[in-house]
Amino acid sequence: MNTPRASGLLASELAAVTLGVSGLDTGLQRNGATVLHLDWQPPGNDDPGVAWDLARATHDRSTDGKSLGFAIDRANAEAVGRVLQAEPTWVDVALAAREIWPAMGRTLLHAGPPISWAEMCGPMRGAIIGAILYENWATTADEAKKLAGSGEVRFAPCHEWGAVGPMCGIISPSMPLVVVENRVHGTRAFAPFMEAGGARTLRFGAFGDDVSSGLKWIERVLAPTLKTAVTAMDGGLPLKPIMAQALHMSDDVHNRNTAATLMLLRYVAEALIRPGMRKDLVAETLGTLRSDDMFFLSFSMAACKATMDAAHGVRFSSMVTAMARNGVNVGIRVSGLDNEWFIGRADVPVGLYLPGFSEKQANPDIGDSAITETSGLGAFAMAAAPAMVQFVGGTPQDALRYSREMARVTITRNPGFTLPALDFVGSPVGIDIRKVIDEGMRPVINTAIAHKEPGMGIIGAGIVQAPMQCFTTALQTLVAKYAAFE
Amino acid sequence: MNTPRASGLLASELAAVTLGVSGLDTGLQRNGATVLHLDWQPPGNDDPGVAWDLARATHDRSTDGKSLGFAIDRANAEAVGRVLQAEPTWVDVALAAREIWPAMGRTLLHAGPPISWAEMCGPMRGAIIGAILYENWATTADEAKKLAGSGEVRFAPCHEWGAVGPMCGIISPSMPLVVVENRVHGTRAFAPFMEAGGARTLRFGAFGDDVSSGLKWIERVLAPTLKTAVTAMDGGLPLKPIMAQALHMSDDVHNRNTAATLMLLRYVAEALIRPGMRKDLVAETLGTLRSDDMFFLSFSMAACKATMDAAHGVRFSSMVTAMARNGVNVGIRVSGLDNEWFIGRADVPVGLYLPGFSEKQANPDIGDSAITETSGLGAFAMAAAPAMVQFVGGTPQDALRYSREMARVTITRNPGFTLPALDFVGSPVGIDIRKVIDEGMRPVINTAIAHKEPGMGIIGAGIVQAPMQCFTTALQTLVAKYAAFE
Repeated sequence: MNTPRASGLLASELAAVTLGVSGLDTGLQRNGATVLHLDWQPPGNDDPGVAWDLARATHDRSTDGKSLGFAIDRANAEAVGRVLQAEPTWVDVALAAREIWPAMGRTLLHAGPPISWAEMCGPMRGAIIGAILYENWATTADEAKKLAGSGEVRFAPCHEWGAVGPMCGIISPSMPLVVVENRVHGTRAFAPFMEAGGARTLRFGAFGDDVSSGLKWIERVLAPTLKTAVTAMDGGLPLKPIMAQALHMSDDVHNRNTAATLMLLRYVAEALIRPGMRKDLVAETLGTLRSDDMFFLSFSMAACKATMDAAHGVRFSSMVTAMARNGVNVGIRVSGLDNEWFIGRADVPVGLYLPGFSEKQANPDIGDSAITETSGLGAFAMAAAPAMVQFVGGTPQDALRYSREMARVTITRNPGFTLPALDFVGSPVGIDIRKVIDEGMRPVINTAIAHKEPGMGIIGAGIVQAPMQCFTTALQTLVAKYAAFE
Repeated sequence: MNTPRASGLLASELAAVTLGVSGLDTGLQRNGATVLHLDWQPPGNDDPGVAWDLARATHDRSTDGKSLGFAIDRANAEAVGRVLQAEPTWVDVALAAREIWPAMGRTLLHAGPPISWAEMCGPMRGAIIGAILYENWATTADEAKKLAGSGEVRFAPCHEWGAVGPMCGIISPSMPLVVVENRVHGTRAFAPFMEAGGARTLRFGAFGDDVSSGLKWIERVLAPTLKTAVTAMDGGLPLKPIMAQALHMSDDVHNRNTAATLMLLRYVAEALIRPGMRKDLVAETLGTLRSDDMFFLSFSMAACKATMDAAHGVRFSSMVTAMARNGVNVGIRVSGLDNEWFIGRADVPVGLYLPGFSEKQANPDIGDSAITETSGLGAFAMAAAPAMVQFVGGTPQDALRYSREMARVTITRNPGFTLPALDFVGSPVGIDIRKVIDEGMRPVINTAIAHKEPGMGIIGAGIVQAPMQCFTTALQTLVAKYAAFE
């Protein structure tokens, strides 16, 4: 009974698993075989050069531990270690030009990677006009538009100035900013306050007298009151415990900040009762914290930025330290690749729209708030925030799935940020560009959606993924830069 | 080929499903049959009388809709409807004897069904001694003990006075109480404030100068400050929106009140900024709300009591309107059965103990806080609060399971209290004694655990179930009372 193996195989019922190109199945199916087709494609976006670089950066390891793959692993351990150790602390409220960047001049900072006035999307143009009006550099929208295009106003990404801004992310010289210091590594980060007023806010691309007066109110009432509060807190307010607790209270600290804002209010209220503050200012400030469930986002973003900046600049590291969108492009920065941006086209988020709006009016993905995902929070921690699917769409099971899937593209889990619904496992943290390419899985981001025309504001919220192009270009640059050091 | 059916059955391989008594399997197994044994027992705790009453109250329905089963169904729809419609609102802080019950005299209210001094468990005796010392009816613990046993102090269940108290649940004449009014049905309920101080509190059975001075602080600082706050809130503070939102922030508003307490603090802080309050008293009050994550429990319990009292007294209804424990017995009250208590022996909860303690030192289940479960919250809503398993034990999957299982013993789901992790389904509400017996599934309660000796305080937290005896006795009474009206 010495039957050759192949014939034995063909004698019984035929079943096959096919990978990739689906045409392979047809011949088998025609011959009556049961076929399970797996939707697989080789890593690297169909580019053999990327696949080769991935192999060099990952699998091509010598046994003496001296290969590029090992060097990157070691560097990533160092980089993500700094993320885990960081202790972001709210220490101050300071004015952009007067107290933080004295040489700011006529600079406007914006969200995402660098972009010129000519290339900017509608809402960012609207926000630039709004900022120029707020700064009194022009008195009408037309004048402001002309000035913006004249070359007399300098534009720069928030990220390059140690700052982060939500949505359009405009920071102008007169703005008071939240100042967060990472007590362990000394990095400082800045973020503008959340304006009250919903759609009619600078961050969503609105401009005009109401927007300017909202920003002036922040200067006049909110900022000095909160500066008094944080000054009264001896040594500032550690933000990591608040964020960790917020994850246990159904926040993801990106698009859900309900619990974190309440905790912030608790500390601020207590701090403000003690010194001799003007009661009307205190009441107005507490009223804002009470009515805006997203108020903590500025603190969360600045905390994540102060954390990720500490992990930037680790030679060989393939860990993403910034992921930011300007409404046209998404850019990432990688720890081992200096201050270079790796760019891909921004997608329109998939989500829930306010009545009367649809993806037709939606601007592509915008804002620096993806610093939360970069830092292992936001959509990466969405298992903590099932109630958020009422805002961004999907089901509570999707929220669990994002947190599970992102573990496949990250370096480790953060034991300081645990997810109750997943048996208290740590949130996945430290995006490794190699894993993103190898898994063919792009990092997920939850986000508000802006109208693509200036001045229209928020029209929905949803889920979006960073473009693969950012990661493939970054990998090629990483391999080119460090291959010589192998 | 006209084979008789039975022989055909026996000719093939034999497989059987057996129910109940396990001895039935052995003969089958000996003959080589595959046996699946289901652990089932007839409803009614092995009592054929109960099973018969259950049949009369449930299945014995005439086609003209006039049977007892239909009458009970209709009554339950009315009773649970009142629960869904209730609008509990925090309206006042009032002194027990001076403002609420002028004829209170030397009465001490306690948790659970009625009990005499001689029968009371250790911690409740401790709390009675503590209350007598706090009231200055005696100056030493020995004197207090003697007075308690003398008959000169009257004991009564909180529930019978429209009140609820956590753990030992002692309410004495000098205590200020939270006053909650159900705006729809006009019912009012009262609960004592949560004392600061952890283990050394009256509610856990402690007594002595520190306990008395904690209670005096509530009289002197907390109560007048909160009375000012609630008075400043025009029309009081609606509690249902806070509780509903808290379920979306990982509270169950029984043993986890972190989010609800923060929301309460938010409203209180804002209310206190406006009137000309003494800053030191405001600061102390906010400090307490900040440091005690369970502070809202008094409000939650009073809200549930004001809700369930509105659903009490519906003729024919088999819905439970109170479920309360005195540390010896668990008692339930049923909407259609006047003010009668149906009693069973209290179990020791299964849970997590503080270092150095175990179930050996644990007092059986105690407290009126199971009014939250009675009202469809607490363990019934535990799917909302996965993080709580760190306190009561078990896994996040257990939390989901409790909310799913309790739907089998309740009348409906509450669309006002939704559970994000279960796709926003409403929390199960309205315990039907018929379903408890029919399913053989006792209502689940999450609870703190007190030391069985007086004065020792909290030693853990866990999960416990109400005894079946309460439900079977109540059912027999219900059928006896209403069978004549069929």
